[in-house]
Amino acid sequence: MKLLRFKADGVEKTGLLNDDEITKINCSMLEALNASDIHEFKTENSYSLGDVDVLPPVSPSKVVCVGLNYRDHAKELDMKLPEEPVIFIKPSTAVTGHLNDVIYPPSSTQVDYEAELGIVIKKECHNVNKDDASDFIGGYTILNDVTARDKQRKDIQWTRAKSFDTFAPIGPCIETELDPMDQRISLKLNSAVKQDSNTKNMIFNVYELAEFISHVMTLKPGDVIGTGTAPGVGPMQIGDTVEVEVEGIGVLKNFIKSI
Amino acid sequence: MKLLRFKADGVEKTGLLNDDEITKINCSMLEALNASDIHEFKTENSYSLGDVDVLPPVSPSKVVCVGLNYRDHAKELDMKLPEEPVIFIKPSTAVTGHLNDVIYPPSSTQVDYEAELGIVIKKECHNVNKDDASDFIGGYTILNDVTARDKQRKDIQWTRAKSFDTFAPIGPCIETELDPMDQRISLKLNSAVKQDSNTKNMIFNVYELAEFISHVMTLKPGDVIGTGTAPGVGPMQIGDTVEVEVEGIGVLKNFIKSI
Repeated sequence: MKLLRFKADGVEKTGLLNDDEITKINCSMLEALNASDIHEFKTENSYSLGDVDVLPPVSPSKVVCVGLNYRDHAKELDMKLPEEPVIFIKPSTAVTGHLNDVIYPPSSTQVDYEAELGIVIKKECHNVNKDDASDFIGGYTILNDVTARDKQRKDIQWTRAKSFDTFAPIGPCIETELDPMDQRISLKLNSAVKQDSNTKNMIFNVYELAEFISHVMTLKPGDVIGTGTAPGVGPMQIGDTVEVEVEGIGVLKNFIKSI
Repeated sequence: MKLLRFKADGVEKTGLLNDDEITKINCSMLEALNASDIHEFKTENSYSLGDVDVLPPVSPSKVVCVGLNYRDHAKELDMKLPEEPVIFIKPSTAVTGHLNDVIYPPSSTQVDYEAELGIVIKKECHNVNKDDASDFIGGYTILNDVTARDKQRKDIQWTRAKSFDTFAPIGPCIETELDPMDQRISLKLNSAVKQDSNTKNMIFNVYELAEFISHVMTLKPGDVIGTGTAPGVGPMQIGDTVEVEVEGIGVLKNFIKSI
C-alpha cells in the first residue's frame, strides 16, 4: 500500500493513496508503518490528491546517503566497484516535499540532480544484520540527492555540497510492499529522460546498506537512507522541473527556483 | 552564567551551576538561553553536582563541525591555511554527555580524541551575517570530536569516522558569557596533557563559522557547531579516561569502553 502525509483544511494528516484518491487514516505515519492492520485506522474521509498539499512522508532526524552504488554508474565513471559503502549525511533541514521548490544557492554555479530509491526506517535499529533488516524497514520512497557539484569538487568532503536547505526532496509517498531489488528508476528534466536504470544494478542492496549504516549509527524511526544514484547525473537550471520516478512508488516532482 | 541539564530523582531538569552547586530553574535549556532575566525562573531547590547525572546540555538536531581550523594545528601538519571552512555533520545519535562512556567500535583500530570549543545555537538562523551571529548564539560548551581515524583514512569522506554512537560527547554545561576569542583549550588522556592551545589560534572565528554554515543550512535551536581542534590529536585505548578543558567553561570527562 501507499502511505502519504498531506495538509488539507490547514491540518497535517496521514492517508492511504489509491490512484489519485486519498483515504484519511487516524494515526501518524510512524504508527501506520508499524501497524499490524492499517484498516483499523481508516476513516470515511477522502480527498483528491490534486486538492491537498503533499508533505514529505516522514520527518527524518537524518538522511544517510551512500556514494557510488550502481554498477552502471561506476562503469560510466570508469571507477572500480567499492569494497564498502561510503556514507554521508544530509541534515533534516534539507528535507522538502513533492511539488516544492528546490532553491538554487547563489553561491553555487552547478546544482545537479541525483535520482535515488529511499529506504524508510520504521523502528529504531542498531547493529542489525542484513537478514533481519526488513523488520526495521517500513517501506520505500523516492529521493532526489540534490548536489552543488562545484562545492563537492572544491571541498573534497561532500557535506556542504549535499546539505543546502531544500536539497533533499523526498516523496510523494511510501510504498510498503515494494520489492526493492528490481524496479526501474528514472529521471526527467523538463520532460527529457536523463537517468534510466534499475535498482537491480545496486552494488550494495538495501539490506546490506541498512546493515552497514546501522553498525555505525543508530537509525531512528523516520530516518531515510539514500541508496545511491544511477548513470546520467547532470546540472539543473533555475526554472527547470525535475521528476524522479521509481516503478511501483510514483513520481517525485520539484521545481528549481532562485531565492 | 553556567547552565546545565541534569537528572535527579529520575527527572530531567535544568539548572544554574555555581562551583559545585546547582540551583534548579523552572524552564527548558532553550528557554533559559533565550530568557531576558533568568532569575525569574530560579527555584529554591538546589543539588550538589556530585549527586546528579549530568546530561548533554542540549539535544541538537545536528552537530556541524569544521575540519582544520587552528593555525598551530595547520603548522603541525605542515598544511596551508584553508580559504573556506570544510564542514561535516555528526548525527544527533552520536551525542553523549559528561562522565558517559565513549564506545570503541569493534570495527575500528584507531579511535582519536579531538578537543573542541562548541557553539550552542539558541534561535533558528539562516544566512546570518558574522556581525549579527552573536544574536543567535546562546553560549559555548565543550565537544570531543571523537574520530575513528582508520575509517577516515579509508573512506576519504569523514562522515563514517565521525558518526559512531557516543562519538560526540558534549558538556558539561553552557557558559553564556564566554569570550570565545581567547580561551585556553586543552586535553588530558589519563592525566597526561596531550593538547594545549588557545581559541585565539582559530583560523575562522566562531562568528565567521556561524555565518558560513548558516549560509548552507538552517541552524535550529540547540544545534551545536564544533569549531575544530588544536594540535596534538592522538589515539585512545579501551580503559582510558579523556578530559577536555576549556577555560571559563569547565572539564568534559569521558571513559573509553568496549561494547
